[in-house]
Amino acid sequence: MIGVDWGTTSLRAYRIGASGPATDRLDRPGGILTVPQGGFPAALRDAIGPWLAAGETRVLLCGMVGSRQGWVEAPYLRCPAGPAEIAAATTAIPFAGAELRLIPGLTTEDEGGVPDVMRGEETKLVALAESLGTALACLPGTHSKWARLEDGRVTGFATHMTGETFAALSQHTILARTSVDGPDVPEAFSRGVDRARQPGGLLHHLFGARTLHLMGRLEQAETRSFLSGLLIGHEIVAAASGVTAVHLAGAAHLSALYAAALARNGIAVTQHDPDLVASGLRQIGRSLGWV
Amino acid sequence: MIGVDWGTTSLRAYRIGASGPATDRLDRPGGILTVPQGGFPAALRDAIGPWLAAGETRVLLCGMVGSRQGWVEAPYLRCPAGPAEIAAATTAIPFAGAELRLIPGLTTEDEGGVPDVMRGEETKLVALAESLGTALACLPGTHSKWARLEDGRVTGFATHMTGETFAALSQHTILARTSVDGPDVPEAFSRGVDRARQPGGLLHHLFGARTLHLMGRLEQAETRSFLSGLLIGHEIVAAASGVTAVHLAGAAHLSALYAAALARNGIAVTQHDPDLVASGLRQIGRSLGWV
Repeated sequence: MIGVDWGTTSLRAYRIGASGPATDRLDRPGGILTVPQGGFPAALRDAIGPWLAAGETRVLLCGMVGSRQGWVEAPYLRCPAGPAEIAAATTAIPFAGAELRLIPGLTTEDEGGVPDVMRGEETKLVALAESLGTALACLPGTHSKWARLEDGRVTGFATHMTGETFAALSQHTILARTSVDGPDVPEAFSRGVDRARQPGGLLHHLFGARTLHLMGRLEQAETRSFLSGLLIGHEIVAAASGVTAVHLAGAAHLSALYAAALARNGIAVTQHDPDLVASGLRQIGRSLGWV
Repeated sequence: MIGVDWGTTSLRAYRIGASGPATDRLDRPGGILTVPQGGFPAALRDAIGPWLAAGETRVLLCGMVGSRQGWVEAPYLRCPAGPAEIAAATTAIPFAGAELRLIPGLTTEDEGGVPDVMRGEETKLVALAESLGTALACLPGTHSKWARLEDGRVTGFATHMTGETFAALSQHTILARTSVDGPDVPEAFSRGVDRARQPGGLLHHLFGARTLHLMGRLEQAETRSFLSGLLIGHEIVAAASGVTAVHLAGAAHLSALYAAALARNGIAVTQHDPDLVASGLRQIGRSLGWV
């Protein structure tokens, strides 16, 4: 089978067998935002045509290609969901010469009854869930995802808008004056993480990044790391309260920051290879009887 | 005496007697950022020259004119501080034809030992503190100030960067797509305020503003009000936890929002005329023996 992770800014495709790593892989910048109206069939054929010609007949897609801005909108599937539920909820898309199915995103509601969504991450989480049993997983990013995994299924999750909030605050508030680009300062990052455990609230703590600098207690070169630690720290306090262990899968630099912040909160961290999509696609493909 | 509130974007001056309202007042856009280097004496004379010619001999200044970007930097005074402590800590500035004194800003440290500062607001708080005895006061704004008042003095305070955070998030994140300008929607604002009391943390709640819209449970025209309520709600949860009454003094629109959010949290609100500076300048002038 062919598995495709088609996101906003890139398209990644894999030839996937019943076991072992993908035999072929493809990574190109043609994200869904670059596809002209009605252009999805041609764009996909352009990417995986040679594999189809080589005899592949089944294509499983995940990611923002199933969003309102994508090829076809695949409705969100409600948690708890594992490979079987996700496979059963895939959407078939007519495509000459191959069977095409689109993986749904997942939705859940938090204690307050407010909905949350993911699209693309569910496939990575399926891969993590298979090996972990019951665990709390974190996929750090612009919109970090914290997911509860139980018996191979995603039973619930919460999104934290931490990365995007960091970008907005460090570029478009009074903190921008001192949040200059520069190397990470681990000690300042840790101070921010520790600050997040104190009372006062995030909106007050943000101003502290300004006043600490004003009072000569935080260097300009440290402010950006302090702010990063403060926001990631607040995320962890909210998302991992009472938790003793977290499984982390994300890009190397960001994962290192999260691992440091989790350790600072006394939480055990297991880091995973973030390249999980092909494995998740295979598991959902297995539930479809495709591998 | 003459009292001057010279801020970043405006200059307000008052002729102040021993009692009653200011006999003359002046409000012009010439904030400290418009003053060329070395230009403060001339700019002040241009504003209050006629009052000096009419026999005034003492000028008391507050606001950002005493900051690093102002005329002379007036060091911050540590809380607790009332009119007597503030008067004793004023900085004399040489000025031909009048005695000139600059009011210091205030500084405090929160439970975590992180410093906080205000400059200009201390004069308004002195005015509030005189009449209130022991109270919690809130001056809402880009950087809201929450101050504990006891026996006419400011004993401590906390700044919340709520207004600026709202601007950055509503203009520079994914929430900008739906946070369109438009009339306030009180019901959506209240939903945001209530959401802030739920678990999950602000960074998660922010994403909820997106997903509620995505799921058709929050209209585009409501998103901005929801986000405003969410942030003000988080500020109140942090700043007024366990509090039963708050005294509010700020611009009409913002004060109405804070009053609604406080009431929604079961906190009694007393709204005050925000035009407090002249009264605070008089009280500090009284401690100087000027009125």
